[in-house]
Amino acid sequence: MRHLAVLSVLLASLIGCSVEPERGSRGAVAQGPVVEWKLVTTWPKNLPALGTAPERLAEMMDTMSAGRFKIKVYAAGELVPAFEVFDAVAGGTADMGHGAAYYWRGKMPIAAMFTTAPFGMNAQEMNGWLRFGGGMELWRELYAPFGVLPMATGNSGTQMAGWFNKEINSLADIQGLKMRIPGLGGAVFSRAGGVAETMPGSEIFTALQTGVIDATEWIGPYNDLAFGLQEIARYYYYPGWHEPSATLEAIVNLEAWKALPADLQAMLEVACTAVNQEVLDEFTARNATALKVLVEEHGIEIRPLPDDVLKRFAELSTEVLEEEARGDELAQRVLDSYRSFLADMREYHAISEQAYINARSDVEAAR
Amino acid sequence: MRHLAVLSVLLASLIGCSVEPERGSRGAVAQGPVVEWKLVTTWPKNLPALGTAPERLAEMMDTMSAGRFKIKVYAAGELVPAFEVFDAVAGGTADMGHGAAYYWRGKMPIAAMFTTAPFGMNAQEMNGWLRFGGGMELWRELYAPFGVLPMATGNSGTQMAGWFNKEINSLADIQGLKMRIPGLGGAVFSRAGGVAETMPGSEIFTALQTGVIDATEWIGPYNDLAFGLQEIARYYYYPGWHEPSATLEAIVNLEAWKALPADLQAMLEVACTAVNQEVLDEFTARNATALKVLVEEHGIEIRPLPDDVLKRFAELSTEVLEEEARGDELAQRVLDSYRSFLADMREYHAISEQAYINARSDVEAAR
Repeated sequence: MRHLAVLSVLLASLIGCSVEPERGSRGAVAQGPVVEWKLVTTWPKNLPALGTAPERLAEMMDTMSAGRFKIKVYAAGELVPAFEVFDAVAGGTADMGHGAAYYWRGKMPIAAMFTTAPFGMNAQEMNGWLRFGGGMELWRELYAPFGVLPMATGNSGTQMAGWFNKEINSLADIQGLKMRIPGLGGAVFSRAGGVAETMPGSEIFTALQTGVIDATEWIGPYNDLAFGLQEIARYYYYPGWHEPSATLEAIVNLEAWKALPADLQAMLEVACTAVNQEVLDEFTARNATALKVLVEEHGIEIRPLPDDVLKRFAELSTEVLEEEARGDELAQRVLDSYRSFLADMREYHAISEQAYINARSDVEAAR
Repeated sequence: MRHLAVLSVLLASLIGCSVEPERGSRGAVAQGPVVEWKLVTTWPKNLPALGTAPERLAEMMDTMSAGRFKIKVYAAGELVPAFEVFDAVAGGTADMGHGAAYYWRGKMPIAAMFTTAPFGMNAQEMNGWLRFGGGMELWRELYAPFGVLPMATGNSGTQMAGWFNKEINSLADIQGLKMRIPGLGGAVFSRAGGVAETMPGSEIFTALQTGVIDATEWIGPYNDLAFGLQEIARYYYYPGWHEPSATLEAIVNLEAWKALPADLQAMLEVACTAVNQEVLDEFTARNATALKVLVEEHGIEIRPLPDDVLKRFAELSTEVLEEEARGDELAQRVLDSYRSFLADMREYHAISEQAYINARSDVEAAR
């Protein structure tokens, strides 16, 4: 029998496959041709949680496929610049990408809503909408003409409103304030009387330090601490009305997707869902730790945005979203679906997550 | 070349493996010996979201492994009764199980905290603790002496406080009230003056209908509507202080786990994480829809538990948890780790998720 086993292995190696190990073996199974994909990202190398998400995905795929599916991850600029990731995947320069849909707003304005919307859904709500509320079907419809398939692959949770060197005590303090705030949030900020600036992450630090801008949003305590923003700004405002959660996307070239065998397709979908969960877990845990460091070690002052500012931002958010969708049938369907799901969520969370978290802090405060 | 390809396939089938299909083929790859596992659950067949979670897991594993990993799912009572799932997995009668850790409280009192704790963490916090706060390591340490490996595989989100046929206007109304509420929540309820009853789900409907009990908790709108509780109770109270989230578990016999090749182990872990996310998504979306049906079609009255009741329950929850852990070194470490993470979460969520969801409803109310 031993000779037969050796012969089998030899034959297997000749024809490009290997023999499944018996139950009891820990060895992975290397079989036949290997799928090798290039994955381009919008993130700097090793950016916490964001840049590491596609690395985690590639590792999962390698282990699950026993080496049959290799994904090489390229940070922003290594193969293509950050904002060319979508085009690179659509055109086949890369097989896959990782980033966020709101970067493709120039091409498809409504794409932004698959990342986040001002005064929109939190992470739990967004995940519910995408998987069970029709959101994912709309997202796939939006990208299909480009030959690109999106999957939700990470979430930041609720972000912070941003870093300011001026106190914000009322709407008057927003007038003329120069803030780095891109996308829909930026449109709302400008309409409220501020001056919204757009610049890549790499330029923010110097711009704020030299007073070119008065304020900037970035992500949340975990990333902002690593970025060093506590060194050049005094006030850290909340809540992140402009990004109450941000869904990260994996995008796949549709031809490359169709060429995959069914087992590798399934692995990729399941791995994206797992990474979607794990990235939120990482943000949740690490943000809490980083907040303590910012307050206790760096003496940062944490402030809430005033009610009149939030109220005005909310009104303008409605306007901006409606203008964004106007005259585009698919965009209108996206907005309608999003709003209808959010309306149901408001009602439900008022008696579940929101009611609970408030009851929990009320009883704590009463002790 | 064609003859060589045919020969390769023939050889491959002789030695128990197959040739990887070329890029472009959608066919799945069937290889060698098949791993066949029995998975026993604590759930009735097809119980929404709970009973369907292991079915979803089995389907993922089948597709990802191209048929090499078959999991047969047995509902409660089909192979072993619901409350014997842990022993069946520990003893090897089944390779795997799906249920919730609080069912094993008789064996390990602190196990309950890996499902939920009164006035404890919500789903997002719990997932953060398990993956990045040391929770999972403690859970695995707790089950290791039994030869069982746990994985988080589903979450209900915040539950409802329950169904009542009597109004609860103050702590006085809890006195002598007979309620079906098991576990730590039940211990707290009894200590507050109520009479906590434990009975399997199958007996609840008749018990409430005939007045044997005055109230019952179950899960949330999605499951409760399907269960028909709206037909026999008038008031639906919130929030679910006793189950602010409930983590479902997959448990694996450690010997069976060790016998798996590394690729199948990785698939199983990744699939559990994906199911963990998807079950919460399903609850989030379906609870919201079911709540509308309960209110609009069945005229159910939704009521908040009064502040003095919540406050008393919170005080007693602290007592009960401390007693539960006393004198057991590992249990004390679990409680300490849980509390420390929750304390950080309270601080962080006060300026993130909680602050945002309250700001969102405040601006809406101000319109």
